[in-house]
Amino acid sequence: MADANQGHVIAYGSDPYTDFAVQKFREHFGDGVDVYFVFGGTGANVLGLTAVTESYRGIICTRNAHINVDELGAVEKFAGCKLLTVPPAGGKISVDQIRHLVPAEDDHRNVRPRLISISQATELGTIYTQKEIRALSEFAHEHNMLLHVDGARLSNAAAGLNLTLREITADAGVDVLSFGGTKNGSMYGEAVVFFDKELSRKFKYVRKQGTHLASKMRFISAQFAALLSDDLWHKNASHANRMATLLAAELEQIPQIKITQKVQSNGVFAQLPGYCVPLLQEKYFFYLWNEDLSEARLMSSFDTTEDDVRGFIQSLKEILASAR
Amino acid sequence: MADANQGHVIAYGSDPYTDFAVQKFREHFGDGVDVYFVFGGTGANVLGLTAVTESYRGIICTRNAHINVDELGAVEKFAGCKLLTVPPAGGKISVDQIRHLVPAEDDHRNVRPRLISISQATELGTIYTQKEIRALSEFAHEHNMLLHVDGARLSNAAAGLNLTLREITADAGVDVLSFGGTKNGSMYGEAVVFFDKELSRKFKYVRKQGTHLASKMRFISAQFAALLSDDLWHKNASHANRMATLLAAELEQIPQIKITQKVQSNGVFAQLPGYCVPLLQEKYFFYLWNEDLSEARLMSSFDTTEDDVRGFIQSLKEILASAR
Amino acid sequence: MADANQGHVIAYGSDPYTDFAVQKFREHFGDGVDVYFVFGGTGANVLGLTAVTESYRGIICTRNAHINVDELGAVEKFAGCKLLTVPPAGGKISVDQIRHLVPAEDDHRNVRPRLISISQATELGTIYTQKEIRALSEFAHEHNMLLHVDGARLSNAAAGLNLTLREITADAGVDVLSFGGTKNGSMYGEAVVFFDKELSRKFKYVRKQGTHLASKMRFISAQFAALLSDDLWHKNASHANRMATLLAAELEQIPQIKITQKVQSNGVFAQLPGYCVPLLQEKYFFYLWNEDLSEARLMSSFDTTEDDVRGFIQSLKEILASAR
Amino acid sequence: MADANQGHVIAYGSDPYTDFAVQKFREHFGDGVDVYFVFGGTGANVLGLTAVTESYRGIICTRNAHINVDELGAVEKFAGCKLLTVPPAGGKISVDQIRHLVPAEDDHRNVRPRLISISQATELGTIYTQKEIRALSEFAHEHNMLLHVDGARLSNAAAGLNLTLREITADAGVDVLSFGGTKNGSMYGEAVVFFDKELSRKFKYVRKQGTHLASKMRFISAQFAALLSDDLWHKNASHANRMATLLAAELEQIPQIKITQKVQSNGVFAQLPGYCVPLLQEKYFFYLWNEDLSEARLMSSFDTTEDDVRGFIQSLKEILASAR
Repeated sequence: MADANQGHVIAYGSDPYTDFAVQKFREHFGDGVDVYFVFGGTGANVLGLTAVTESYRGIICTRNAHINVDELGAVEKFAGCKLLTVPPAGGKISVDQIRHLVPAEDDHRNVRPRLISISQATELGTIYTQKEIRALSEFAHEHNMLLHVDGARLSNAAAGLNLTLREITADAGVDVLSFGGTKNGSMYGEAVVFFDKELSRKFKYVRKQGTHLASKMRFISAQFAALLSDDLWHKNASHANRMATLLAAELEQIPQIKITQKVQSNGVFAQLPGYCVPLLQEKYFFYLWNEDLSEARLMSSFDTTEDDVRGFIQSLKEILASAR
Repeated sequence: MADANQGHVIAYGSDPYTDFAVQKFREHFGDGVDVYFVFGGTGANVLGLTAVTESYRGIICTRNAHINVDELGAVEKFAGCKLLTVPPAGGKISVDQIRHLVPAEDDHRNVRPRLISISQATELGTIYTQKEIRALSEFAHEHNMLLHVDGARLSNAAAGLNLTLREITADAGVDVLSFGGTKNGSMYGEAVVFFDKELSRKFKYVRKQGTHLASKMRFISAQFAALLSDDLWHKNASHANRMATLLAAELEQIPQIKITQKVQSNGVFAQLPGYCVPLLQEKYFFYLWNEDLSEARLMSSFDTTEDDVRGFIQSLKEILASAR
Repeated sequence: MADANQGHVIAYGSDPYTDFAVQKFREHFGDGVDVYFVFGGTGANVLGLTAVTESYRGIICTRNAHINVDELGAVEKFAGCKLLTVPPAGGKISVDQIRHLVPAEDDHRNVRPRLISISQATELGTIYTQKEIRALSEFAHEHNMLLHVDGARLSNAAAGLNLTLREITADAGVDVLSFGGTKNGSMYGEAVVFFDKELSRKFKYVRKQGTHLASKMRFISAQFAALLSDDLWHKNASHANRMATLLAAELEQIPQIKITQKVQSNGVFAQLPGYCVPLLQEKYFFYLWNEDLSEARLMSSFDTTEDDVRGFIQSLKEILASAR
Repeated sequence: MADANQGHVIAYGSDPYTDFAVQKFREHFGDGVDVYFVFGGTGANVLGLTAVTESYRGIICTRNAHINVDELGAVEKFAGCKLLTVPPAGGKISVDQIRHLVPAEDDHRNVRPRLISISQATELGTIYTQKEIRALSEFAHEHNMLLHVDGARLSNAAAGLNLTLREITADAGVDVLSFGGTKNGSMYGEAVVFFDKELSRKFKYVRKQGTHLASKMRFISAQFAALLSDDLWHKNASHANRMATLLAAELEQIPQIKITQKVQSNGVFAQLPGYCVPLLQEKYFFYLWNEDLSEARLMSSFDTTEDDVRGFIQSLKEILASAR
């Protein structure tokens, strides 16, 4: 970014930093992709979805999907679409769960889905395999639908699967992707990637009308260029995943704690004794994913250190000990 | 309507027919109500809801609510709101089912509900008692929410409960009502009733911007004036209910048929042997409510005759007999 | 309509009345048209426009167009589009006036128009000739735009031009039409006519999500079938036009009155001495089009009688006389 | 920003950087202000406007306002509002121009304005005096309207007027402000300032649903904290203004060039011989504001140097000389 802060360039994305970043995306995701930068993750999801659907069609997602529970109805407001939700199984959607949402006949009264939107890694830190993604994209394409991936943590998923970014997107039939930088080291900025140029036809208009055309786009581009160079995305993501694995391993040693989801990326979901939560939150920032179960959502990131993990475990043990 | 078709009057609702119809509404629903006419039922729901909520708040309803499954996402598109759905129990919502949808704290990321919307009679032909409605309105009001009733079949519910229209709305704490005429004898037109004038403040603007200001509103008004005079609403609805009761009684005599919902208004839900359905549909118009169960939704109306019912039963018996 | 009120038919437009009405439209507008019925004129305009444009494109119209000044921003709210307005010349748009609104290059920051929308007859009662319409449609088609006609008074225009409905629409290159019945004798209902079936592809969804699918559509269809049978549309419109001509002829005899627009259809615009206006409005309903100029908009309709006109003139003369 | 890049803080604006930045805003704009950060300028305008108006009300602005011509209909799409435009006089709006847009009576068919939105400095580089702003805010408040300022270049205006930020906003009756950082040195980020806390009530929800809640908000906050510390905003803006003054002074020496607008902030509008434009654009980035007049829009900024200006003048002179 310091580089991009020198000299005068043309605004609104007609600059060499953006061209370079797009080139990097094509290296990682395939020559055929179209890439557009926006300010943030909710914008990436909302605008990427809006660009490829009519308002009278629906978007299938899990009940706990970020687009359903963390964006304050942004999709409904801007895209005008209904979300068709299904209960997540281990955080995921399977074809069997959603088959009934695609009516055999089109009667123009019931909302017909246009997209399946999945989160990779999921909201529960689990990961879709390439095969699972392909099953969804094939089902989508058979029914005139598209597969959208909310990839705020796509890097963590790829690292967790030990696959390339391309293998879990283009090669698995993904159509539209929100690719996140913020959770993997960036200050701001998100990329919307279209795997078929026909699908991106409206995006630059949707982005502008959707208030996400950055005048100094080069600063977003520069961050993505850095992430996609020298495997930085992979280093950051692998590190975060390792920290989650370490955290889970430590938590498993503590009898009062129960790990509730498979630890496959950078998130650990664990039930803690209720009294621990406020005491731990004095020192560490985390949410309760499920208040009734006292289930915490513990996320590691590119800058989590082993000392952070050990400190957390130490604090937890002290709280548990003092409670006896 | 023939009356309203004579002479010249002022357009857009400033006419004596509309004044008279509003007066009739006040007689039936209470002096404090504000009433506005629109063209149809989906418009009544969408505009009535839009007028009392911000786009970033949600609307609680059953998964099978008309606003959720029969309006092609009209609420999402126009109000911009998310629908927060719960599985219906006998067609209804209870407070216990929805308590978890009202977050204790407001964190401006999760959608907080603004309205509970129920259908009376429900989509399954069942009826909320006055006590059940009051429980919902009290819960709503305790949490800065409102109670909305989709009353496309409110007349049938009132007749079924043997209560006045006022007893199951104003007296039970309802805030906003879509009052249907079309299913009870009208050609077109629906009324949006606000039980607190403060809530109706924006409605005339929302209606105009929402494309539902009728230039010749007197024709809608005249139909409602007729329905609400001389107990016509009650006669029509009671008749329709009786026809449903008759139909259910006849169906119960047929061993191959299973009634699946309590028959409390003008709808009968019944499982038929699958092969009967297309044969019956050649002569009678009805939907399958649940295709997997071969569960038919059989609705009676103000102009259903006993002969219609007996003819239906006769046809069904013949089909069943010829299948042996 | 009394006919359509007998017997049971399938709801939502799958009925013989609607089929017959559509057939009548094809007789009058050409075999290739697709026709859909909605409840009212604002709905017809908003939904017809929405069905053929993206939200990020604009709609060219005159500053005094009904869609700009009489629909409370309904187009902006539902279609999401910007209206690009030009000052009307005699109520009309010409190609020269709008050329500058079509940018040579597409820079995705300025709104590019998708439609030219004209009113026929215009808001000032004047009429576009077939040649004028064709000039606009050719310009539109050269620039990837469409020509939309708000035809609330199309019948009056056709009668005024002594042309068929087809000659001033299909034959002049019109793409989408709102065809009004309400101002020509109907109680309610408006038709949206697409002159190219490809353009109508989304309409039935837009109509449903836009709250204008009538359950008892046959009552709208029946009214249009009647209007388009036995030249009723033409009789009604010609009569209204004659009454306007008569009114204008009488007004011209009165020295204190100035006719301000050419009288070509069923509207007369005339400047009256200011003190006359409230006195006349006690007996006759009309708007002041321009309050500063004391310019009244006097509309005749299918049911205006010669006696109505002579009564109005008589009242005006008495007011003028008593003011001396 | 380097500071804000250290350590772990709570996401979404609950961080000390944001608290500090808000404090800085209160120092400069008054204790009573509420401040919210968003990603960019179009978002600031759209969301600030949306938060204080209903969709059925209008927004008065000049025809060349950024919200009208540079945001691809973003206001119409998200707020649902109609823009009521007037021709700018020297880039500005005056009360006399807009009086006719406020109808005496409310008839719920014509759009009634809710806001007057002005740009300060204007799109033409001119500046509203404090008195001119106060005249607009007083007129607005008398008619139940608010005054909104698009202050992408507010710093340049304040520096040009030699007034504080508070004197040209709070003290002049401004209600809502988009305060720009990007054009005055920031990488991204814009602030929406409400001068009455009642007006900001909905903003955090509108921002979230409007996709502008930054997870790492501290990076935006840190930039504004820096701009508002040690008079950096003023130094940057004064410098840019001086460069514009210098540029104008130099251009005035050249007989073939005509300065078309008063140079009061950081913009110079000048007519150049048409053939110069493409040649100059090979080396310098600028737009033609008016292609027909060959009128260029030449903007200076915080990082424009005297050498840049002299280089530009030198290039222009060479082009002119070689054309003889």
